[in-house]
Formats: sequence, C-alpha cells, structure tokens
Amino acid sequence: MEEDILYHFSLSTKTHNLPEMFGDIKFVCVGGSANRMKAFAQFMHHELKLPGIPEDIRDICEGTDRYCMYKVGPVLSISHGMGVPSISIMLHELIKLLHHARCRDVVLFRLGTSGGVGLAPGTVVITDKAVDYSFLPQFEQVVLGKVITRSTELDEGVANELLQCSSELQNFPTVIGNTMCTHDFYEGQGRLDGALCSFSHEEKLEYLRKAYEAGVRNIEMESTVFAAMCRVCGLKAAVVCVALLNRFDGDQITSSHDVLVEYQQRPQVLVSHFIKKHLGLVA
Amino acid sequence: MEEDILYHFSLSTKTHNLPEMFGDIKFVCVGGSANRMKAFAQFMHHELKLPGIPEDIRDICEGTDRYCMYKVGPVLSISHGMGVPSISIMLHELIKLLHHARCRDVVLFRLGTSGGVGLAPGTVVITDKAVDYSFLPQFEQVVLGKVITRSTELDEGVANELLQCSSELQNFPTVIGNTMCTHDFYEGQGRLDGALCSFSHEEKLEYLRKAYEAGVRNIEMESTVFAAMCRVCGLKAAVVCVALLNRFDGDQITSSHDVLVEYQQRPQVLVSHFIKKHLGLVA
Repeated sequence: MEEDILYHFSLSTKTHNLPEMFGDIKFVCVGGSANRMKAFAQFMHHELKLPGIPEDIRDICEGTDRYCMYKVGPVLSISHGMGVPSISIMLHELIKLLHHARCRDVVLFRLGTSGGVGLAPGTVVITDKAVDYSFLPQFEQVVLGKVITRSTELDEGVANELLQCSSELQNFPTVIGNTMCTHDFYEGQGRLDGALCSFSHEEKLEYLRKAYEAGVRNIEMESTVFAAMCRVCGLKAAVVCVALLNRFDGDQITSSHDVLVEYQQRPQVLVSHFIKKHLGLVA
Repeated sequence: MEEDILYHFSLSTKTHNLPEMFGDIKFVCVGGSANRMKAFAQFMHHELKLPGIPEDIRDICEGTDRYCMYKVGPVLSISHGMGVPSISIMLHELIKLLHHARCRDVVLFRLGTSGGVGLAPGTVVITDKAVDYSFLPQFEQVVLGKVITRSTELDEGVANELLQCSSELQNFPTVIGNTMCTHDFYEGQGRLDGALCSFSHEEKLEYLRKAYEAGVRNIEMESTVFAAMCRVCGLKAAVVCVALLNRFDGDQITSSHDVLVEYQQRPQVLVSHFIKKHLGLVA
C-alpha cells in the first residue's frame, strides 16, 4: 500500500514518521480506561526518572476519541475500551504500527480490572491461560463468515517473571491462574443484577464453582483475543488484572472510590517493576 | 436490592434521585464516540430551542470515563464505545436507569458510522433487520456457559417514519436495508488491510456480494445486541448509520476530516427531525 491509515489512532504512514516516533518502543501496556492509561504513563514517567514533568505527556491519538496513547521512553501506554471487538481494532492498528516503526523484541501487557473467582478483593491475577465461556484456551474469530479457532497461550516466562516481581515487592497478594474472557459483563459472567437475568442465585454459584474447578481465578472481557492476536503475530504477551470483588460474595462493585483506585494501581506497580528490572533500573 | 449501583455510569439509586434526573426522558440516542454524542447533545439543545448555552451541557457520567451521558430536555445522548460487549454493558445499565426513573414510552436510536455495501459514501442506512455474519436476524448470547439466540427485529413503524423524515429533509440519500453486525473491524468485515489477513481480494468481494444479495447495505459492530436487548425489554428501537465508504471500492477510510464530520452529522439531522416532529416542533 502507498499509505496505511491507522484510522482509529488518527495516524498514518504518510502524515507521521512512525519509525522516528515509535522505533525505540520495547514495552506496550494496554488497558480499558483512558484515564487509567494516562495515569499509568505519568507513573512510568516518574518511575523511569525521565526529564520533564509527567503532566505534560501528550495524547498521541488526540485526533480521535476512540483510543488514547502515551509514550514514555520505551513504554507505550494505550487505552482499548471494553470488550473483545474494541481491543481487537486497537491491536490490529498497534501491530501494524509496530511493524511500520520497525520495532523489535516488544513485550505487550494488558493491565486490567476483573471479577475475582474465589479470591479476596485486591488480589492480582497473572493469567496462565485465557479461556472462553467453556473454560477452553481458545478464541473464535469469524473470517468471511466462517468461524476459525485460535490458541490463546500466553508467554510462560513473562508470567513467571511477573510473579517473581510480586514476591520481591511484597505489596499485595498475586496469583497465577486462568482468566475467563466473556462478551458481556452481566449474563455472560453470571451476574444477577443486570437488566436481564434468567437464572437463579444457585445456578450462578454452580457456574462459578465449575469455573473455579477449571482453574479460573478471574473474569474479564479482553484476554482471549489479546492472547490470540499476540501469539499469531509472534509477540510476547502477559495479562495482569486486579480482582475488584470476589464473585462468590456478590455482583456489584461496592468498594469505595479510593480503595478501587488503589487496587487499580497494583497491576501498574507490578508491570513497572518488571520494566525497570529489564532496563537495569533495579537490582 | 437496597441499592443498585450503575457502576459504568458512576450513578446509583442511593446517591442519585433517578426519577427526578431522568423521569421526563422520551428519546435515548446512543453512538460509539463520546465527542460525537456530546456534539449531538449540543445540536439537539439548539434544535429544541432550549434556554442556556449548549456549551454548558454537563457530562452526567463525569465520575467515570467508560461512557459519556448528556441530557437535553426529553433527549438523552450517551456514548457506548465500540463493539457488542461495550454497548451491551451500557444498555444493561441504561435499561435499569429507565426502570428506576419510571420512564414510559421511550424510543431508542443508535446513531452510528458504518461501511457501506454497494452504496455511495454518505448514504444513510435505516436498519431493516440487524443480521449476524451468516446474514441471519439473530444475536447469540452466552448465559452461564450456554448459547441462547435472541431475535434482532427492530420497530418497523419507527424505521418507516425515519425514511419519511429523510424525504421531507431532502438533504442526503437514505435507504432502508439490512445491517450486518460483526465482532471486529478487520477480518470479520473482510478487510484486506488488518494486521492479519488470510484471504484474497476476490474472496473478500465474494463475501460482500453474498451479503448484498442477502439485503445487507452496511456493516457495523453493535446493531444485533442493541436490537435484541431493546426487543426483549419491550423498547421501540431504530438503528441509523451513515456509510463512510463503499466496501466494494476499498477498505481504508480516506475521505477528508471535514467530509467525514459532515457525514457523521447526517444520522443526527435525521433523528433530530423525527424528535422535533414528535414534540410538535415541526409540521
């Protein structure tokens, strides 16, 4: 192609020098919320002791409101919205961006929030396998009207390194477990408090118990396609999500704003430690 | 429940008087982009000749960055992000909000952008049937690990009234046709320019031709779940999307920013005319 327009980033190979802008990227961190990924960029700016003030970091995608993107040294922080379709658009354009920018040896992290399955609120889950609603490590992609299945295996080495980082930090409980990815927040996750609900409290608990037995420790909405696309494209990837509640105890997120903000920082602290170790900034 | 927290709106029955805030709502307009739904709210403020200045309209969901929400007289304008999961969370919480606020006879509109199938760019499509990747008018919802199928029929009366509005306005071409809803923007829509592509130009065209023969005139990413949830909950609903390009001619959106902005106003102009007629503000 003469020009490649990364439409949802409001970037293009013709109007932007992508190798110059992004050629030094080594770590890409993605998460649902635009505010959270801005806060993560500012946090990394501080952690990497970069010159300038964190508040001045500019949204590279300011030409659109679909996603936000911040660059902090070798770290790119991008928001992806909620759900598989939203993150999949972002990943297509991110992977093209990394290709155009001729980046090498990039590691991708999804930093998210999730519902815990048999875990205390605030526990961080590093994903072993990203599984679908049948607890299978696969992602179904429709291509020209046909369903194809892709593996959702993540990088075991990165996951183990992240667990090691957590034991060094000793700040919060962290486990490795399977992460179930659903296509909605209510019926698909067995919540009783949606606008529609056709099952009983007991049926909900039975489904969550089956999930727990299959090794599922948390539920979110993006991990399978993130794992599948990174794997097909040969990119190392990890998913790190904090559990905001224990789904065996309820459906609504009732913790105070301040508690939730602190929980959401935990995946950021963990991944920041990983990055600093790789950059030789901590022992 | 003692309290219902509409988590992704940052609203709750305990902290907000929902009947007072929303009891007079008669029209709910939703669309993917936060900026576009803010612009629509300001446009409606002008069209309804309401007191005050449009720039002062406050985001009711300012406590979160998941969605934006603006109220303009009897009209609610809400952003829903991209894809079925993202709009489904919003719809669950919106339908609960309308219930708590005791709203009656509400009509819902999705105002969106889409890829046209055999249509000139800028054509507005009012959805007849919202169909899946097999061109069937159904939505598959996973409930506790089991797939159930819901009908995606929309309100025929509202669709025909909208077409009548367009012929009164005589501003832009408008058709009634089927809308295909996919779960991604690239492989699922047969785009050749994603990070992954396993099919040929000819295979893409064959799929689009089959879609056209099945009555599909545009492709977007939210219509089936929007239609299905509104139908199950007994809410009248319509989908009005502008085609930004003709997919038979290409995959990338190459029109200028100004042209795209004008295209995106077309569904807003159409729905605004419908609302003004229902409020007795035009003949």
